[in-house]
Amino acid sequence: MNHFHCEALDQGTVSLPEDEAHHALHVLRLRPGAVVGLLDGRGMRAKAQLVSVDKRGVTAHIVERSSEPEERLARIHLAVAPTKNAERFEWFLEKAVEIGVDRITPLITERTERIRLRTDRLHRIAVSAMKQSMRAWLPQIDQPTELATLLVRAPGPQRFFGWCEGAHASLMESYDAFGNALVLIGPEGDFTTEEAGAMQQAGCHAVTLGRARLRTETAALAACTWMSLAQQQ
Amino acid sequence: MNHFHCEALDQGTVSLPEDEAHHALHVLRLRPGAVVGLLDGRGMRAKAQLVSVDKRGVTAHIVERSSEPEERLARIHLAVAPTKNAERFEWFLEKAVEIGVDRITPLITERTERIRLRTDRLHRIAVSAMKQSMRAWLPQIDQPTELATLLVRAPGPQRFFGWCEGAHASLMESYDAFGNALVLIGPEGDFTTEEAGAMQQAGCHAVTLGRARLRTETAALAACTWMSLAQQQ
Repeated sequence: MNHFHCEALDQGTVSLPEDEAHHALHVLRLRPGAVVGLLDGRGMRAKAQLVSVDKRGVTAHIVERSSEPEERLARIHLAVAPTKNAERFEWFLEKAVEIGVDRITPLITERTERIRLRTDRLHRIAVSAMKQSMRAWLPQIDQPTELATLLVRAPGPQRFFGWCEGAHASLMESYDAFGNALVLIGPEGDFTTEEAGAMQQAGCHAVTLGRARLRTETAALAACTWMSLAQQQ
Repeated sequence: MNHFHCEALDQGTVSLPEDEAHHALHVLRLRPGAVVGLLDGRGMRAKAQLVSVDKRGVTAHIVERSSEPEERLARIHLAVAPTKNAERFEWFLEKAVEIGVDRITPLITERTERIRLRTDRLHRIAVSAMKQSMRAWLPQIDQPTELATLLVRAPGPQRFFGWCEGAHASLMESYDAFGNALVLIGPEGDFTTEEAGAMQQAGCHAVTLGRARLRTETAALAACTWMSLAQQQ
């Protein structure tokens, strides 16, 4: 059964969003009568039958609904500096959604070279990964956010940042899988000493992810994997 | 300092292998006298000064050597079915080398659609990831191997295979970070029931990697990340 993302599943008849409608019509070439799965990205799944499929759009009649609880008891929030090569950030996003994450913030720091991202493209990648991994929850993807702003706004009793300089405890020994957590991962040139100081003042603990020097997107995914799997241990 | 892979570091003067020489000459445009780092991929690092850099090759005079112990006390061996899309397997390889792995076997199973891989390309990706992550150890990359052959040949008191069908313990609760381990990850269509039976007879335990359905390369990297980080906890 093909799955589509559709945010409003509370009506009896729903319209697929434009890009999902395009996919149904032009790629999958579905016809009226086809039975599909719908996911709202907030835990609701529906089984639906297509009513109309044409250039004006795709509508579906909902046959049954079920809702799923949040996957994790404790939230995982990753704030990651976009990589110079946008593909590497997109790859991280796809994999993080497959493995499990609640919120991703593209992080603007002093040494972040890329401060613009195609967030519509990121959204599509996340939706595709959600469907691929049969999830009913779509993580929140923020607009690129300055470090100082994030430190004020982001909640989370557990706050960590990856830092290569100096000797620190590891994320693996510091992370408590029962509590919400925010992990900040810097850009290719790492955080500056001033940024590290500001994060520490804001209650963030410097951590390592093992002994190796990891690329930004690898560090972000390794942190995500550790936290997500630790919750499912 | 630029680093190069060079397998034989026991002589006073060494020649870089062809692709590394090409990189030094045409990409980095290094000159005689430049000081570079050399890694043999088996724990030996050397500092060397280039003697000649031209189309006939690049030679270097070794100034000092140091050797590093193996990174892990317990070996991590991943046998992973190549993905239909070769890029996804190459991506997994790059990330696994960054995060830490000892041996990777491309695994031929009944439903593996791609049975040929450009192992020279895989070798280059692994070398590049080793240099990127400042490692001195290069994992062993095998030729594509049939499942039955691997089960007979591969050592390892701990043997696991990822399996989506049925309810199993998780890798996270099953893996003992103090022992060598082999993890087998199947292709897009998963292992067959017969293959699962053969693996179980060979002492492999079916495990999950959490609740989500992961792509082949994501499952392989998640397993690698968990085991590698668990050893550095």
